Amino acid sequence: MRSKAESVNRALDEAIPLTEPLNIHKAMRYAILAGGKRVRPILCLAVCELLGGEERLAIPAACAVEMIHTMSLIKDDLPCMDNDDLRRGKPTTHKIFGESVAILSGGALLALAFEHLTEANVSSDRMVRAVKELAKSIGTKGLVAGQAMDLSSEGLDHRDVGLEHLEFIHVHKTGSLLEASAVIGAIMGGGTEEEIEKVRNFARCIGLLFQVVDDILDETKSSEELGKTAGKDQIAGKLTYPKVLGLEKSKEFVKRLKNDAKEHLKGFDSDKVKPLIALANFIANRDN
Amino acid sequence: MRSKAESVNRALDEAIPLTEPLNIHKAMRYAILAGGKRVRPILCLAVCELLGGEERLAIPAACAVEMIHTMSLIKDDLPCMDNDDLRRGKPTTHKIFGESVAILSGGALLALAFEHLTEANVSSDRMVRAVKELAKSIGTKGLVAGQAMDLSSEGLDHRDVGLEHLEFIHVHKTGSLLEASAVIGAIMGGGTEEEIEKVRNFARCIGLLFQVVDDILDETKSSEELGKTAGKDQIAGKLTYPKVLGLEKSKEFVKRLKNDAKEHLKGFDSDKVKPLIALANFIANRDN
Repeated sequence: MRSKAESVNRALDEAIPLTEPLNIHKAMRYAILAGGKRVRPILCLAVCELLGGEERLAIPAACAVEMIHTMSLIKDDLPCMDNDDLRRGKPTTHKIFGESVAILSGGALLALAFEHLTEANVSSDRMVRAVKELAKSIGTKGLVAGQAMDLSSEGLDHRDVGLEHLEFIHVHKTGSLLEASAVIGAIMGGGTEEEIEKVRNFARCIGLLFQVVDDILDETKSSEELGKTAGKDQIAGKLTYPKVLGLEKSKEFVKRLKNDAKEHLKGFDSDKVKPLIALANFIANRDN
Repeated sequence: MRSKAESVNRALDEAIPLTEPLNIHKAMRYAILAGGKRVRPILCLAVCELLGGEERLAIPAACAVEMIHTMSLIKDDLPCMDNDDLRRGKPTTHKIFGESVAILSGGALLALAFEHLTEANVSSDRMVRAVKELAKSIGTKGLVAGQAMDLSSEGLDHRDVGLEHLEFIHVHKTGSLLEASAVIGAIMGGGTEEEIEKVRNFARCIGLLFQVVDDILDETKSSEELGKTAGKDQIAGKLTYPKVLGLEKSKEFVKRLKNDAKEHLKGFDSDKVKPLIALANFIANRDN
């Protein structure tokens, strides 16, 4: 996992040079090179290799999904959204560069993600499929649907909304891009339809897993440990798994999702699935 | 031109159905179906036909460029950017739906543009090239570069900056998407490299033409006539052609650009260039 993260960091550093417009590129680099676990690009690369593709085929796609992820963090942190001051242990992008530059650099990351995706050394057919998958994961069938529902749910009482409502938010806000990361990795690696579907199901499980763990950490850890504002879901009156299910049942749910995820990898080469199982364990057991 | 605009309006109406998330789709429809001259999609369709392609091949691309254009208007009007209340004769998107929904619907339009582009009935090779062209026109080599320079130039004295500085803003902020609209139309229509380059040069001229006329209108027309806040460039201390060149010289520049644009169409079928010449005349002579 570490070596994959390093490949991605190197590629991201190269993909966003410090050229004009300088303040926009500075803001983009500040937001994307600030650390982060690189879960989405690692997933993308590991799935590509699982299906027999070389890592380099999926590097542009891995960078693209991290660009989209960073864009969504910049947006989420804006004053008119979650209004957050801290991200990955540092002041948020708009705190340093101002709101207008933050918004422009978010849009620039989104555009660069698509440009970058078309740099991959794969057939045009694979590339078009990847573009479609990435675009769907960002728009009103994916990320935006989750963000919209999340915003409109603030202040709702957890007794008034069910688990289904909470899952909708998470499946879209966090799950859709994780799913796209895995599926695009599969497309780049030349997976069959059946393989792509298995990978999609694995990614859906770890997408939800990721968010349940995030909710637990938000409730149980300090801002310093997390590198972002802790307890903010509670302050904003946001729905979380511990709030709806209770802490213990949320932890049981984590275990179940981790096992379900691994089930979907059955039938693949047992050596090649190791990085993906390590990733699922990492997501389940991480403490920030 | 009118029938092309109608095809585009119908396709846009279908492309953004009133489904969940309802408030986002409402905002997207509000922003994009509010009228507008449809210059970019008409250009895209007309170039596709000029090069022998059927109109339907370029309809998804035509919608995509209008989606990108609308996204850029939503962003430009935000309180932290130009802070504008009026657009196409109606309140701006954030005025009606709030800032967070406006930002999310802008992002959703951007994602949908790429998704939509991959719906075209052309080869994957053409599609990948179109994706690359569109992405480049939006990011830090295009639209964002212009917006960034525009923002950082507010309050600068016109005696301190030259025409080159002003042209940089316009070539990027307005020109790059007009250029992409024409070039993508050429790609969809199956143009040769030489044809694509001619079309690119034509689009560059009308891109600059569009902006010089915009600057003149901003200074000479009322808000009511324009359907957007008039004189705002002046109030914001923005650089404009009338300010740098004077009104008369700006009008001469309009004539020269119109003629230059037409020059680039020489060698094409004289019947098929008619819609493009009509478009150049429309852009030069429009009064809002």
